[in-house]
Amino acid sequence: MPTYKLTYFNIRGLAEPIRLLLSYGGQDFEDVRIDEESWKKLKSNMPMSQVPVLEIDGKQTHQHIAISRYLAKQFKLVGDNDWEALQIDTVVDSLVELRRRIAFLALFVELYPALRGPDPEVVKKNYEEAVKTTIPFYLEKFNAMAASGYLANGKLSWADIYALPFIEFLESVMKIPVVDKYPNLKKVRDNVMGIPKIKAWVNKRPVTEY
Amino acid sequence: MPTYKLTYFNIRGLAEPIRLLLSYGGQDFEDVRIDEESWKKLKSNMPMSQVPVLEIDGKQTHQHIAISRYLAKQFKLVGDNDWEALQIDTVVDSLVELRRRIAFLALFVELYPALRGPDPEVVKKNYEEAVKTTIPFYLEKFNAMAASGYLANGKLSWADIYALPFIEFLESVMKIPVVDKYPNLKKVRDNVMGIPKIKAWVNKRPVTEY
Repeated sequence: MPTYKLTYFNIRGLAEPIRLLLSYGGQDFEDVRIDEESWKKLKSNMPMSQVPVLEIDGKQTHQHIAISRYLAKQFKLVGDNDWEALQIDTVVDSLVELRRRIAFLALFVELYPALRGPDPEVVKKNYEEAVKTTIPFYLEKFNAMAASGYLANGKLSWADIYALPFIEFLESVMKIPVVDKYPNLKKVRDNVMGIPKIKAWVNKRPVTEY
Repeated sequence: MPTYKLTYFNIRGLAEPIRLLLSYGGQDFEDVRIDEESWKKLKSNMPMSQVPVLEIDGKQTHQHIAISRYLAKQFKLVGDNDWEALQIDTVVDSLVELRRRIAFLALFVELYPALRGPDPEVVKKNYEEAVKTTIPFYLEKFNAMAASGYLANGKLSWADIYALPFIEFLESVMKIPVVDKYPNLKKVRDNVMGIPKIKAWVNKRPVTEY
């Protein structure tokens, strides 16, 4: 069994899909959570000056989606053929796309006051409009894909596990109701949370805001 | 042999890796290039109201990276094992990350005047600083990875083919010298362009600005 050492900040963030997948696979891993001070020292040792970095048998790997797909292959969560793998990759890329759009909006709203523009109300309105339109657009699509309770191919894949912390993020950070409003996404969440090794990880992990 | 129908705008953009991969695989494909008027009509028929969409035997697929990886599997460009596939995925995700950062900067600079902020010079300076720091940071990393003339595993993969239009974009749109400054990236470009089926596509494709 390989040894795994994960380095990231003390948040769920981009590392949580990796933690969930390792837990699903029953793999022990060292869950290193660094603070800002350690990060200054570590940064230049990281392949692209970024985390998460997962060391597998001492070899550094980075880019959280690539790592997640690699782990999913080890744990047979990538579908049974190339076509099924494509469906899974497509869902993950769409989840990532929505998260990026949200990050862009959040950053934009946050940056705006620093620019001291004349009409922050316009920016705020754009942001609220996106919360009303862009996010529901994606969530409705994801909900429609997940009639079976799984996001791709009617069975469990790493897309469902990848989706779990994103659903948590939307609910707890963005305060957007997901599982109450989109019954199939509730099924996805419940199916993933119903896996004993996943549930055990969620129950024992450090409690953090993000 | 499956039938392929690609729908996108009349630009290289996100569809070009797909066109290059289909060409590499010796696959005929219908290269549908729509204008703004047709897009208005087509948009709601697309899975996420986005293009590129590739129909494979009449079935719609979307998300250009997922599609590229699927095609790469058909044409044996994904490495010889999961570890090699991880290296390739990591390079592609890093290329995508850099493109996204550039797009963010470009959008931000473009949006800024509309916000009528007091100091467009500050924004312009940030942008120029990024062109001086962020982009070279990535290009140096990519250059270091590509000592063999290939971006991953010392042999041709879809990461090299994916990189080709991105290098073109940086050079022709951003006016950033890549191949003159980063000799290994020149090797990557030359190796990909040296593949007769790739070269044939590049020579026959419609000439567009982006």
